Amino acid sequence: MSETGNGANGAGNGAGETGGPDFNEIRKLIADMPVPDVAAVEETRAREAELTKPPGALGRLEEITEWVAAWQGRHPPNVTHARVAVFAGNHGVAAQGVSAFPAEVTAQMVQNFVAGGAAVNQLTELADADLRVYEMALETPTADFTQGPALSEEDCAKAVAYGMMSVEAGVELIALGEMGIANTTSAAAICHALYGGNAQDWVGPGTGVAGDALAAKVAAVEAGVAVNRDLLDDPLQLLRALGGHEISAIVGAIIAARLAGVPVLLDGYTCTAAAAVLHAIDEHALDHCMIGHLSAEPPHRALCEKLDKVPLLALAMRLGEGSGAALAIQIVRAALACHTGMATFADAEVSGKAN
Amino acid sequence: MSETGNGANGAGNGAGETGGPDFNEIRKLIADMPVPDVAAVEETRAREAELTKPPGALGRLEEITEWVAAWQGRHPPNVTHARVAVFAGNHGVAAQGVSAFPAEVTAQMVQNFVAGGAAVNQLTELADADLRVYEMALETPTADFTQGPALSEEDCAKAVAYGMMSVEAGVELIALGEMGIANTTSAAAICHALYGGNAQDWVGPGTGVAGDALAAKVAAVEAGVAVNRDLLDDPLQLLRALGGHEISAIVGAIIAARLAGVPVLLDGYTCTAAAAVLHAIDEHALDHCMIGHLSAEPPHRALCEKLDKVPLLALAMRLGEGSGAALAIQIVRAALACHTGMATFADAEVSGKAN
Repeated sequence: MSETGNGANGAGNGAGETGGPDFNEIRKLIADMPVPDVAAVEETRAREAELTKPPGALGRLEEITEWVAAWQGRHPPNVTHARVAVFAGNHGVAAQGVSAFPAEVTAQMVQNFVAGGAAVNQLTELADADLRVYEMALETPTADFTQGPALSEEDCAKAVAYGMMSVEAGVELIALGEMGIANTTSAAAICHALYGGNAQDWVGPGTGVAGDALAAKVAAVEAGVAVNRDLLDDPLQLLRALGGHEISAIVGAIIAARLAGVPVLLDGYTCTAAAAVLHAIDEHALDHCMIGHLSAEPPHRALCEKLDKVPLLALAMRLGEGSGAALAIQIVRAALACHTGMATFADAEVSGKAN
Repeated sequence: MSETGNGANGAGNGAGETGGPDFNEIRKLIADMPVPDVAAVEETRAREAELTKPPGALGRLEEITEWVAAWQGRHPPNVTHARVAVFAGNHGVAAQGVSAFPAEVTAQMVQNFVAGGAAVNQLTELADADLRVYEMALETPTADFTQGPALSEEDCAKAVAYGMMSVEAGVELIALGEMGIANTTSAAAICHALYGGNAQDWVGPGTGVAGDALAAKVAAVEAGVAVNRDLLDDPLQLLRALGGHEISAIVGAIIAARLAGVPVLLDGYTCTAAAAVLHAIDEHALDHCMIGHLSAEPPHRALCEKLDKVPLLALAMRLGEGSGAALAIQIVRAALACHTGMATFADAEVSGKAN
């Protein structure tokens, strides 16, 4: 686990040089996604039943262990090499005054990641993971989605392909995160388009907007969904209409992780909204993903319910940058350590249940 | 952090050789407990406000950092040396058939702790803490509390004093846990005595009892509270009537930690029930304690609410042995790592909030 905490590979213009799949090829990858390894799950359960504890007493740690085994396709499941991948992009909709911070903060925070000064650096280091920061064409924001699609189909597909590269050989667990001023506005628009309701149901304060800025954020979400209405029946078209470079890259990373047998920890609202696009295509597309942390951004709770997932942690964080997912790596490590390190009743000569 | 994962100092007859305080002296220690360090909290908040994140975006991690600073009485707060202290005791009420496991499992699990084979060993090692296991007169269970007080006043006070020894010089954070067949019956009786309601409101399946054994558990709790009625108005008398060696020791460890400026992570139902005795004496007696994990033992939720505390984790564990508290150490470490390791806006040349 070298490069902990301050790696920044992949920086540069991520949207334009990869020659990856187009939308049809992406659809085919999703249609052909692998299924869980039932044999690995059975082996995991068999050992779990023999460990020195009452059956089920480790609760969600047992669920996590089975999940890692299912998607890694092996027993015992193992995470030596965990990665935190943070994708950064800029958004034309920032011009609508939807964020408490100016758009240049995206690039400044990327530099902070590189220098090791952000929360995610500290959390990645504690989790004994490596950090990769993918800076995606920050000087070229998406188009303002209140005026039309944020991205062309080609640029969106390239960003998806770029995200796929984060799942390099050897990575055994990946935590996904994002940085992008105005991207909770994009997340809100995606959720409003996918799940309906009122725009304000899906809009939260993000970095801390209130009053006029919050009203502007709601208006931008309403306008984005109205203007792009003709594109929203198809989830990938919805992604390019309302998403962004980093959001598309997260979609790609989730697909690539499934193909490579790598379990995924999702972060907060923006990251989960990206994942929801895949769920809209196939309700099993996120079976290899857990949500690391329930964000304090209010609509994240409803979004998690739409995906039928209970986040591992709920510490009222609302920072993005992969922070909640990075923190959850330690919970996964705890689960696997118990499963592999504990003695069995026979090993320890401990008496079993009386009845 | 040596001795990680398999230390077992303090094993032996813990209830009888310490020459510690009697009940009156314990009352005086509680009455004179230190208050939080306001200056350390102010310094913590001042730095937190300058870190490269929106204000409050680290949620409960910020609360944790302030809490550690308040009780350590210093800024920056720091936890290099964390300890997991597990107290083990046996209970006469086990004879009522209230547990799914036989009483000899307490001693067998202590040997498992010593050998490094239990869940808490794995979780302690991951948390970079040391583990101390305190075996308390396992060959001499408490009296069966359905027949009268579980402990004499003298034996209870000695167990409290023994628990105090776990807070040795140099320990900067302590996670408390317990092992003792039948001790969730004891915890249920304590809660029923403190908070009323029906006995079954406070009784859960523990290690996994159901049917007749669960009915026996409810009956034991009812009988214990009825038989010891005259002792229950005073929390320390209640402790000796319905508690046990390990439960009394946890009371002592909490007091000693307060005196020594050591924040405390409480574990699940039995550990929190021990703490509730102190809360009944002084509602501020647990201000230096957080609950590490919400147990799947159903009454733990109501008990946490009585103490006005929200556990840091909720992973449906129900194992005891300090496992939930040990896991929460990593959350505390994450909080402190962010606070001390992150760059400020000025350091990182990141633009602040626009308004």
